[in-house]
Amino acid sequence: MKRVYLDHMTTTQPDERVYQAMLPYLREHFGDALSVYDLGVKAREAIEEAREKVAAMIKAHPSEIIFTSGGTESNNFALKGLAYAHRKKGNHIIVSVVEHHSITSPARALEREGFEVTFLPVDKFGVIDLNFLEKVLKLETILVSIQLANPEVGTLQPIEEVVKLAEKVGALVHTDAVAAAGQIEIDVHKLGVHALSLSAHQFYGPKGVGALYLRKGIRIHPLFYGGIQEAGKRGGTENVAGIVGMGEAARIVKEEIQNWIPKMKALRDKLIKGLRERISKIYLTGHPENRLPGHASFIVEFIEGEALVLMLSMKGIYASSGSTCPLKALKDSPVLFSMGYPAHLIQGSIVFSLGKDTTEEEVDYVLEEMPPVIERLRELSPFKEGWRDMEKWEETCPHH
Amino acid sequence: MKRVYLDHMTTTQPDERVYQAMLPYLREHFGDALSVYDLGVKAREAIEEAREKVAAMIKAHPSEIIFTSGGTESNNFALKGLAYAHRKKGNHIIVSVVEHHSITSPARALEREGFEVTFLPVDKFGVIDLNFLEKVLKLETILVSIQLANPEVGTLQPIEEVVKLAEKVGALVHTDAVAAAGQIEIDVHKLGVHALSLSAHQFYGPKGVGALYLRKGIRIHPLFYGGIQEAGKRGGTENVAGIVGMGEAARIVKEEIQNWIPKMKALRDKLIKGLRERISKIYLTGHPENRLPGHASFIVEFIEGEALVLMLSMKGIYASSGSTCPLKALKDSPVLFSMGYPAHLIQGSIVFSLGKDTTEEEVDYVLEEMPPVIERLRELSPFKEGWRDMEKWEETCPHH
Repeated sequence: MKRVYLDHMTTTQPDERVYQAMLPYLREHFGDALSVYDLGVKAREAIEEAREKVAAMIKAHPSEIIFTSGGTESNNFALKGLAYAHRKKGNHIIVSVVEHHSITSPARALEREGFEVTFLPVDKFGVIDLNFLEKVLKLETILVSIQLANPEVGTLQPIEEVVKLAEKVGALVHTDAVAAAGQIEIDVHKLGVHALSLSAHQFYGPKGVGALYLRKGIRIHPLFYGGIQEAGKRGGTENVAGIVGMGEAARIVKEEIQNWIPKMKALRDKLIKGLRERISKIYLTGHPENRLPGHASFIVEFIEGEALVLMLSMKGIYASSGSTCPLKALKDSPVLFSMGYPAHLIQGSIVFSLGKDTTEEEVDYVLEEMPPVIERLRELSPFKEGWRDMEKWEETCPHH
Repeated sequence: MKRVYLDHMTTTQPDERVYQAMLPYLREHFGDALSVYDLGVKAREAIEEAREKVAAMIKAHPSEIIFTSGGTESNNFALKGLAYAHRKKGNHIIVSVVEHHSITSPARALEREGFEVTFLPVDKFGVIDLNFLEKVLKLETILVSIQLANPEVGTLQPIEEVVKLAEKVGALVHTDAVAAAGQIEIDVHKLGVHALSLSAHQFYGPKGVGALYLRKGIRIHPLFYGGIQEAGKRGGTENVAGIVGMGEAARIVKEEIQNWIPKMKALRDKLIKGLRERISKIYLTGHPENRLPGHASFIVEFIEGEALVLMLSMKGIYASSGSTCPLKALKDSPVLFSMGYPAHLIQGSIVFSLGKDTTEEEVDYVLEEMPPVIERLRELSPFKEGWRDMEKWEETCPHH
């Protein structure tokens, strides 16, 4: 059966070059990077080479890259590590309501420990409210954490503006760039952030490895205590093969992303336009322009998103519903809810996320296969009668 | 050149079957374990199969296994997670002075947060003092963390006795079994522990993955907050390939360890006997009998251990000095120091750790190659004059 993988926000297939780069480190080059002998040197050099590549991808210095076990660890590390290290300045933290759970959950944990946490609202496109941010920033604010892009609706956030506002009160800015990496070019200096999270498997690298960019000179508390690895900031024997894979993935992104972006944008736009023409009552979620190049997310009325995902997968089409990091516990997407969508519409969310290797043929296949699936599901739907439809909601929802 | 790898306490080469088992999950089976479609199901099933294998290796139930990024995370998770979750009972924690840094460092961090931490002393063999333990246990004691075996001197700890004493005051017992796994059979019920740490790369699995056994019904606080993975106890997209590799390694250990143990013991004893016959002023460290089957650790007088490791590696012999988790910052091994050795002798430590594939030919090679290396190093040594020698120290050291 044809396989059309359009779920790159959930995870990506490692690039063949990433796979090949990792193999020797899973087998013959198995040394521990701290050992003094040649096997150790080999591992250490491989890690440092990967660090240079990851740094180059986001225009950072290699010494500013701390390898972790993934995006969730990086986000927890940033939130808790920066909060604890800068407690003397104040105890106020700001995060947005559309952050990944690996940000909102440690934020709530910090709240329980006595930190004051402000959750920034977003508009109907999922964009954070900069006026609100300006109002709540204060001298006690130590950290603002706003994602670079939302994985569920694709919306890009105005991080440069966030940094400008945060600087006025001397607050640090962290951005979760997990969804953005591999989709847009990232330049930590242009963004101006102090910390930035990455996950390798979101940009054609392996699972189980990520990184935290931490600007030179910024103090942080470790999440783990152990050995002297990662300059004492993150102990534990390094996942050498995973780190090598991440490095190779970063090299590929840096060298090739400029070719991917226009291709992804064109296919994304074709997909959005095509689905809107072929399916009634289908609504694009997230920002219409300021969104990830490969991101096409919708609400399809009278549809249960998870059933749609399953039906599409039977046609070989892979997509997501609700939170693209598919948290079963969160079928009622807090992101769409925060954007003002009522529960019955949120159930009908579907996310197509394109990748570097997505082809026009694949998009054509979705345009051909999805409308009859929707038709079939709507025939079966118990929801189509008695529910308010999107147009009515658009009229009545106060902030739209 | 010949390669004789005798540094299995630092890391092990993944078994070829582990390597082969991982490959599909780094390539075609790249799905996220939470996705509802077939690619996700494939990953989820692979993780659950690995969980069963890891559980079987230590005779636990699969629901008692939480996958982590390695031994350091498991140890931090156990210490902090159990301390926070049982704070209501009391605030007293006991760890030994010979624990790995991923235990002693979070213990010191907890101390800074207001927990009371008692560091248990050890005797000259590195065995914890059970009388001391009995005396310091109190109703406020919530957690005792003692390693199953020490990676630097190979000594096995009397965990069953620790559990019996701890139970009297209702304290939980965690054991760091990172050094023990793959060397001895582990049975969590026989040990009676409530929590146990494992690291895959220490028993022929890959780096970057580990597990925490947590007995059913025991509460713990997460170290990471994120998704619903690992029953909500450890968020983050699973390292599917790493987990699959750990599962296969656990299966191999369970099925084959009984064949390895007598072989490792015989070769270890041959190595110890042979080196003592061929080299003067060489002293076995750790317990003479109650030690890991593959563990042979020594102090060689008038020698700098790191120089010895390098010289041996030039002959293709891989070993460790000082802390076998080779923390450069800790050349003055706190383990040997705690056992009463003076600094000038600690410098001369060397650890050979045998594995399942170590051969008699390899041991013979070490017996042949090491004595001339020692002779050469001693000729160069600036230390041989004016230092107290081991015999004098043995006479004067109070607790020997």
